Amino acid sequence: MTNSTTPHTVPRASLKRLPLYLHLLENLMADGVEYVSCTQLAKEFDFDAILVRKDIELTGEVGTARIGFKVATLIGSIKSFLGWDKEQDAFLVGVGNLGKAILGYKDFKKYGLNIVAAFDNDSRKVGTKVFGYEIFSTSKFGDLAKRMHIYVGIITVPPEHAQEAVDLMVDAGIKAIWNFSPAPLRIPEGVILENVRLTQSLAVLTNKLKRVFKS
Amino acid sequence: MTNSTTPHTVPRASLKRLPLYLHLLENLMADGVEYVSCTQLAKEFDFDAILVRKDIELTGEVGTARIGFKVATLIGSIKSFLGWDKEQDAFLVGVGNLGKAILGYKDFKKYGLNIVAAFDNDSRKVGTKVFGYEIFSTSKFGDLAKRMHIYVGIITVPPEHAQEAVDLMVDAGIKAIWNFSPAPLRIPEGVILENVRLTQSLAVLTNKLKRVFKS
Repeated sequence: MTNSTTPHTVPRASLKRLPLYLHLLENLMADGVEYVSCTQLAKEFDFDAILVRKDIELTGEVGTARIGFKVATLIGSIKSFLGWDKEQDAFLVGVGNLGKAILGYKDFKKYGLNIVAAFDNDSRKVGTKVFGYEIFSTSKFGDLAKRMHIYVGIITVPPEHAQEAVDLMVDAGIKAIWNFSPAPLRIPEGVILENVRLTQSLAVLTNKLKRVFKS
Repeated sequence: MTNSTTPHTVPRASLKRLPLYLHLLENLMADGVEYVSCTQLAKEFDFDAILVRKDIELTGEVGTARIGFKVATLIGSIKSFLGWDKEQDAFLVGVGNLGKAILGYKDFKKYGLNIVAAFDNDSRKVGTKVFGYEIFSTSKFGDLAKRMHIYVGIITVPPEHAQEAVDLMVDAGIKAIWNFSPAPLRIPEGVILENVRLTQSLAVLTNKLKRVFKS
């Protein structure tokens, strides 16, 4: 059942602004601030106050005239809306340099993501531990994902193996894929794909920098 | 002096597609393929061939009718255009979990980025080593950046310290900032800011996933 206040499509831009508000609200709460208005939030980010209000309304919070929002309540509502109020277990595939970096990063739990195991098809890696995570053979992915009710997969394999990893995950019933590989991927309808393109972001930076030095 | 074939503004979308072509071309070269056409590249990514041609033309390559592009030459041109043919030295500020993950990731060198030192304002971290990188006090950043001619800064501090890190970098003559912190940042004109928003990407994923389970 879909909550009637939650539309089926939420603007991606809104979803990307909500974590910004959340970080600020957590700082405000740490400073003992109890209430905040859309105008104050908007000013902090140089956003339009109406935009901020609309973003916040997505979470179901409406605030009180002249008082605004209770900081603690708003933090809870944003976390719940983003799905960060409970942890989603996730499997990671590809324990190369990037995979290791992701396994070593301990803060994803704050954002509702709990990596529980990692997989690789390199038999020299299987059975070893990386940052406390046991590395399993990718051949075990499907069985374990089904048995442990895993619905989130993280892809950190080289680009030429990324589609294989997607297919493996889809077959195993994975519903949401967080892809760090710089490869174009085909996914069936109904599966969520979110890409983090580090090399693409770096391409924008280094090309612009090159032009700064040329001019 | 700006090369006359290089426009001052390159579409961001083109810059983000070029690394995709590059990865594919490197695979083709590894497989012994010598020539490739825009049509072949386009097909691989489900892009329009004219779009691919325009992207590639940005690098100065025009190809030969009916033969296409020499794979090795095109790889070189894309790398050079992206600034990945020579390494840029970079300083990283913020050796928390995220900073450590970035320092532990060894592949940025392939993309022209060479992290040479890391900085933190936590005195317990200063003087220690993380993945072979010595951690310096942020108070040393300006002197070292100027002495070593560093123009790229990577920000991995908590959001509430991100603006301080930007100001420190700008004062030290940093020209391009790769920001991993989920904070809105003010930078002066002429300084390049490129953001990687892991928590924002994760927000999109977890919110969509929540709605999959609700529907």
